[in-house]
Amino acid sequence: MAYFNNVPNIQFEGRGSKNPFAFKHYNPQEVVLGKTMEEHLRFAVAYWHTFTASGVDPFGAGTAVRSWDSLSPLDKAKHRVEANFELLQKLNVPFYCFHDADVAPEGATLAETNKNLDIIVAQLKDFQKSTGKKLLWNTINAFSNPRYVHGAGTSNNADVFAYAAASIKKGLEVGKELGAENYVFWGGREGYESLLTTDMGLELDNLARLLHMAVAYAKEIGFDAQFLIEPKPKEPSKHQYDFDAATALQFLQKYDLKRYFKLNIEANHATLAGHTFEHELRVSRLNDALGSIDANQGDMLLGWDTDEFPTDLYSTSLAMFEILKNDGLGRGGVNFDAKVRRSSFEDEDLFFAHIAGMDTYARGLKAAAKLIEDRVLDDIVDNRYRSFREGIGADIVSGKADLKSLEAYALKLGTIKNESGRLEQIKSTLNDVIFSV
Amino acid sequence: MAYFNNVPNIQFEGRGSKNPFAFKHYNPQEVVLGKTMEEHLRFAVAYWHTFTASGVDPFGAGTAVRSWDSLSPLDKAKHRVEANFELLQKLNVPFYCFHDADVAPEGATLAETNKNLDIIVAQLKDFQKSTGKKLLWNTINAFSNPRYVHGAGTSNNADVFAYAAASIKKGLEVGKELGAENYVFWGGREGYESLLTTDMGLELDNLARLLHMAVAYAKEIGFDAQFLIEPKPKEPSKHQYDFDAATALQFLQKYDLKRYFKLNIEANHATLAGHTFEHELRVSRLNDALGSIDANQGDMLLGWDTDEFPTDLYSTSLAMFEILKNDGLGRGGVNFDAKVRRSSFEDEDLFFAHIAGMDTYARGLKAAAKLIEDRVLDDIVDNRYRSFREGIGADIVSGKADLKSLEAYALKLGTIKNESGRLEQIKSTLNDVIFSV
Amino acid sequence: MAYFNNVPNIQFEGRGSKNPFAFKHYNPQEVVLGKTMEEHLRFAVAYWHTFTASGVDPFGAGTAVRSWDSLSPLDKAKHRVEANFELLQKLNVPFYCFHDADVAPEGATLAETNKNLDIIVAQLKDFQKSTGKKLLWNTINAFSNPRYVHGAGTSNNADVFAYAAASIKKGLEVGKELGAENYVFWGGREGYESLLTTDMGLELDNLARLLHMAVAYAKEIGFDAQFLIEPKPKEPSKHQYDFDAATALQFLQKYDLKRYFKLNIEANHATLAGHTFEHELRVSRLNDALGSIDANQGDMLLGWDTDEFPTDLYSTSLAMFEILKNDGLGRGGVNFDAKVRRSSFEDEDLFFAHIAGMDTYARGLKAAAKLIEDRVLDDIVDNRYRSFREGIGADIVSGKADLKSLEAYALKLGTIKNESGRLEQIKSTLNDVIFSV
Amino acid sequence: MAYFNNVPNIQFEGRGSKNPFAFKHYNPQEVVLGKTMEEHLRFAVAYWHTFTASGVDPFGAGTAVRSWDSLSPLDKAKHRVEANFELLQKLNVPFYCFHDADVAPEGATLAETNKNLDIIVAQLKDFQKSTGKKLLWNTINAFSNPRYVHGAGTSNNADVFAYAAASIKKGLEVGKELGAENYVFWGGREGYESLLTTDMGLELDNLARLLHMAVAYAKEIGFDAQFLIEPKPKEPSKHQYDFDAATALQFLQKYDLKRYFKLNIEANHATLAGHTFEHELRVSRLNDALGSIDANQGDMLLGWDTDEFPTDLYSTSLAMFEILKNDGLGRGGVNFDAKVRRSSFEDEDLFFAHIAGMDTYARGLKAAAKLIEDRVLDDIVDNRYRSFREGIGADIVSGKADLKSLEAYALKLGTIKNESGRLEQIKSTLNDVIFSV
Repeated sequence: MAYFNNVPNIQFEGRGSKNPFAFKHYNPQEVVLGKTMEEHLRFAVAYWHTFTASGVDPFGAGTAVRSWDSLSPLDKAKHRVEANFELLQKLNVPFYCFHDADVAPEGATLAETNKNLDIIVAQLKDFQKSTGKKLLWNTINAFSNPRYVHGAGTSNNADVFAYAAASIKKGLEVGKELGAENYVFWGGREGYESLLTTDMGLELDNLARLLHMAVAYAKEIGFDAQFLIEPKPKEPSKHQYDFDAATALQFLQKYDLKRYFKLNIEANHATLAGHTFEHELRVSRLNDALGSIDANQGDMLLGWDTDEFPTDLYSTSLAMFEILKNDGLGRGGVNFDAKVRRSSFEDEDLFFAHIAGMDTYARGLKAAAKLIEDRVLDDIVDNRYRSFREGIGADIVSGKADLKSLEAYALKLGTIKNESGRLEQIKSTLNDVIFSV
Repeated sequence: MAYFNNVPNIQFEGRGSKNPFAFKHYNPQEVVLGKTMEEHLRFAVAYWHTFTASGVDPFGAGTAVRSWDSLSPLDKAKHRVEANFELLQKLNVPFYCFHDADVAPEGATLAETNKNLDIIVAQLKDFQKSTGKKLLWNTINAFSNPRYVHGAGTSNNADVFAYAAASIKKGLEVGKELGAENYVFWGGREGYESLLTTDMGLELDNLARLLHMAVAYAKEIGFDAQFLIEPKPKEPSKHQYDFDAATALQFLQKYDLKRYFKLNIEANHATLAGHTFEHELRVSRLNDALGSIDANQGDMLLGWDTDEFPTDLYSTSLAMFEILKNDGLGRGGVNFDAKVRRSSFEDEDLFFAHIAGMDTYARGLKAAAKLIEDRVLDDIVDNRYRSFREGIGADIVSGKADLKSLEAYALKLGTIKNESGRLEQIKSTLNDVIFSV
Repeated sequence: MAYFNNVPNIQFEGRGSKNPFAFKHYNPQEVVLGKTMEEHLRFAVAYWHTFTASGVDPFGAGTAVRSWDSLSPLDKAKHRVEANFELLQKLNVPFYCFHDADVAPEGATLAETNKNLDIIVAQLKDFQKSTGKKLLWNTINAFSNPRYVHGAGTSNNADVFAYAAASIKKGLEVGKELGAENYVFWGGREGYESLLTTDMGLELDNLARLLHMAVAYAKEIGFDAQFLIEPKPKEPSKHQYDFDAATALQFLQKYDLKRYFKLNIEANHATLAGHTFEHELRVSRLNDALGSIDANQGDMLLGWDTDEFPTDLYSTSLAMFEILKNDGLGRGGVNFDAKVRRSSFEDEDLFFAHIAGMDTYARGLKAAAKLIEDRVLDDIVDNRYRSFREGIGADIVSGKADLKSLEAYALKLGTIKNESGRLEQIKSTLNDVIFSV
Repeated sequence: MAYFNNVPNIQFEGRGSKNPFAFKHYNPQEVVLGKTMEEHLRFAVAYWHTFTASGVDPFGAGTAVRSWDSLSPLDKAKHRVEANFELLQKLNVPFYCFHDADVAPEGATLAETNKNLDIIVAQLKDFQKSTGKKLLWNTINAFSNPRYVHGAGTSNNADVFAYAAASIKKGLEVGKELGAENYVFWGGREGYESLLTTDMGLELDNLARLLHMAVAYAKEIGFDAQFLIEPKPKEPSKHQYDFDAATALQFLQKYDLKRYFKLNIEANHATLAGHTFEHELRVSRLNDALGSIDANQGDMLLGWDTDEFPTDLYSTSLAMFEILKNDGLGRGGVNFDAKVRRSSFEDEDLFFAHIAGMDTYARGLKAAAKLIEDRVLDDIVDNRYRSFREGIGADIVSGKADLKSLEAYALKLGTIKNESGRLEQIKSTLNDVIFSV
């Protein structure tokens, strides 16, 4: 391994360190609320942003210069695999994630594509074995190839549906072969460009059919990964069917798929849908569906998916609060679905960016743990809702009350007394907690 | 009745008319696709915007000068009732809608409030009888009074829950008394100001409890109106639980309420949630949940609920297309949840605004009917999805296919051939259809 | 010329035509308000979207299949030139527009790039001569090449500034050689990715220096085109310095450049900046700076530049109203800076899309002309502001009044009487006008 | 003074304090970069939000219960004055700000309104003298009264213009009487509801006329306050003429007003216009126009002016960075144009909210000072732009270069070498700086 010669192994050196290649907050073995940071955070590197992407944007060519740029497709793929494991080791990251198209070049036919995949998967498996690194999740890219121009599982073209189904079959086999902890479905083209010409009913029925087929096949081959749906409201499609957590859950409930799926929540997708990241995590958690997260951040003044590395401590603290309240992410993890800015085009930026994200999540974890240990919010919430633990409130919760009994009660009430929510004070307290860690 | 002396009864005079007090497109008895316009559109006047609102905005006092402004609360309420029926008659609108607080002044106690309501409801009933006008839906206002500062059915204060429940009980009784076709739940404060201090799980459970109580009580008293949930993403709350149609449906499914409820979809709420109006109607329709609509429009460059009278022919055409495809709105209707601009403060503006809205919906109806009669979109859609009616596509739809059979099929495919979606041409055609009516 | 064999010359056939390759509204020789449609509209084809773009988006590869796809860069460039003039002729469009990088491949050095340009420019010139087609404007692409990653005229790297300057020099020479009517500056990378590391003062000073140099060199070589700045708020940059019309004007005023520049206003850029298209046109017009337009439309629910072909009749009508009030666009024109949807990947779609746009603008022109001929809005405006043509209002306008005289006047006023703005009625009237043409 | 009996004087107790009525970060006498915190921050209380507002929102009545609620208008006004000075003293805030309508009830006539104002102004003056508190700025409310429904200085009604002018005259006199440091113009209705019926040219000319009159009258009476324009893009108007800093500057430049005016930049107005707060401050600073700030924050997912108390440390740090780079705010200050949430309806919340805001700004000041002292960003910027301090870059800056010399230079360049912008690393460093203070 010799792709990042200038980069040492990244160690924890603590807050005062001036070494740009050091963690200042992420200390993998440090115990927080009874588990190590490493166990809590289960970091993963996103193969596509880190090894496949070039910095291209809609108005400009790629800027990244990588050592493998000039190689043939298959050699390029092999070198990227090596670079991936070198980076995972240097960053001390235990997991990685990929789409099929990230790791192996697409061939002229499905058979050739699968053959290319087989070559790379064998290499990935060897590296996993030799390094101890693991696959957090894999998926297939059913959005970039022109065949998916009208959708994949929701294409109007049955041949395209069939092709996507075949690719998913291979994806599940790859996941099993590599011991993936999860398998993700993100439907970049599963939505519509215009409602005018879209048979939304058929498309959603078909999407459900495809997911049921995937569930059945995974069972058949004994691939026991957690299945995940990743909501996103739009982009590239004008509208995507998995708009947000609630919409994805509505779909899963309607089509009797909920028991097989959890959600992979992405911060930037949350805000594009008009929600905070913590809102989407809360919705998932309350529906027993918080599976994994795509850790990144958007720019609140921009209307597209900027996929920035997460550096906002407010956001990571509140995200980790939800995750701790969920008793962790189970088989899921914290995947950096984030790309270096187009202007951060050097190899070193890949490391600096991951360090930034990992340190920010480590601080978020510590802040969230402190919120929980000190019962900063829990005491407030317990007190706020105390009226539902006694008297008429308890009757409501237990199901004893009905409109008539409640009217009888209300008719005897004098002026109702509410209490201030004290949000300004609480936000100030939150500042003190978050920025004390 | 003598509130609008300057205003004649509004008649259909057709496109060329220069009479500002005439319909140019809405001809109630004109038959479109086998029903009269009147039967299709089932127009309703929103009492709150038309009779209660004053033109106040967050930076300014009310501007509307109405003849009842100086009266005592109860007298004011009585005069508004008279004015309502005068306006309904002059506009030839068959329905109206109200919240309890729109029609009767709130008393010092619940009992007094209910007494005030009884007085006005009796008056409304008399007027309904004498004029033949009907109540499309009623609801209660559980958001304006300071007691609802932390929510109503989702308040942290059990007394507030009880009060809201008692008001709903009365609301259901009022609905029954007046023969309401529907009963609406819009939760302006059912959401949160901050997730930090919100027990979202308890709040949603409580909201479901309240709706189940309402279902039970309606059954008990024999009030057979269609129950409706009205989604809105935010405002006044930072987040409202009924964010959009999909979110409301997820909630209804989860809490076993779906069979009792349909949705009341508002155009401006759709766009605030990041959707087109027709998208929300389509989602509702596909889930057998399209109950009624709040006809208005927002300003796409403003981030709040502007509740403008609908004048966008694109939007009303596509909305009516969904409604026709739904075989109409059933017991629902087209309620003008719209307010005259603060600068349109004269009585006449109430008429001009409704005429504008009714004419725009009438044109939308005719455009939608033409789209359907000429199969402008249906033929395109049928052709686009034809591959699912034969061969492998038919196997997918019928459930015969699985990942293995689809892989076998895909391995034999050559290059997949897609067809252009032709959206630019279709949009141009749409222009010709919409603006030919 | 044989690129579009299936496409005939597009003729005006009128509203009833079922021929997809016909204009239904654009009749070049039809006289509207004393000029032909052709003279009013001065349509132009955007070379980049129509001949260079492939349908790539941030999540997918290009979809368009063109006959020149497999050629070498320079041959491809030559074929595109031929196709351009074939399309201009078949569509009866008099103008085209390009960036240097659209028409000729970039070489390994500036000298080679310029040589490539010379070859293509000679070819363009020949075709202009033989076909009578003209160049509405040209510009350089100073945003796609990786060298512009940190900006061009606002790069932190002086070498990049120098390179951009040299390219502009060539661009001006090319413009002169081809008789361009205008020369455009759009600064896709002239802005910032982050304010943290940006010397905004130096960058803006440098941008002004570059524009002054361009003014001087154009004068030196006798290139008398109208210079245009094209505002855009963001994308690809997080913030672009020419955010909107007002911002661009502020910059031009501050740096004494206003007399040399007008604005090229794009519809989709207007809405991304939070304005309507007509607002940006009005601001430009009132500052004697309305130079040309980029005719397209955005999706109001999407936060990026979708560059759709214009099909919204409201927007084109109000845009043409501003343009007619401006006494036309002078040397500017209506350039379709618009791309077919990624799903409209066939050659024919290029024609259907332009037909859609041209017909929509033709209808907009006729609607605007009718608004003006019938004084629909002018009479309203004249009446609304009549108080400024007499008495105290005239004193205010003429400069006679001061705070003391106005206080003296105001102290004698009773209750001030305003009149309703009647917006609902006016919007309904507007519907009747726009959709009668 | 006895309005806030439960509230002690707020003292600095430092980070560890558990006293909710203590500053944890704002230590007025602490010296930062050579000045005390108090001198840097010049805090002001906004009278309207703190003493006049009731917590009303578009969907609900006021919630705040204040001791003066039941008094007659003039008595209420007097009590509020007392409460204002009690709060200023307890919070140790040196300044306050008001609109005329905040402090004194509007009378039936202009004369009566002025008389009411005189009574209150005398009282304010006495209190200022006895407490040492000062008026940061005053202004008039020319947006709430129905007379301003179509605008004030931009009304279509000359009588309204005259009335607004008379009010401004009185406002200037009041400012002089109370020794205001600044005088503010915020044009809540100076914009349009619809462009259709707006004579934007006349309206802007009239607005400029009014401002020139104000300049002249201030000079005449010897009122030497700094004049400030406060930009806001919209709300209550659909469009406001002072959209953002650049737009306001364009107007001031065009109408030869720039030398008399600086800008009052509000955080929430910045984000509503699509900018960061620091962007608007930077634009103002670079144009020598940074006068004062309205310190608050918006909710990035809501489209209206939420006017929250500032608690975001990122925002206050970067704002204070711009202010320090501006060498302070001069006669301006940090005015809390912020309101407690509707759910924070108790008197104590007024204190907790101001403490939250003051502590957050104090931390922002310290973080910004650290950024400057350690040259965290300055070194990066100096290094990034070093190429403009020598060679060809120096020639560009000095004006020696032209397109020809730059082309000659560029032709000799090999591949241009850019450097990574390192944004991810810089943002991580910023976290360490901001959250170390």
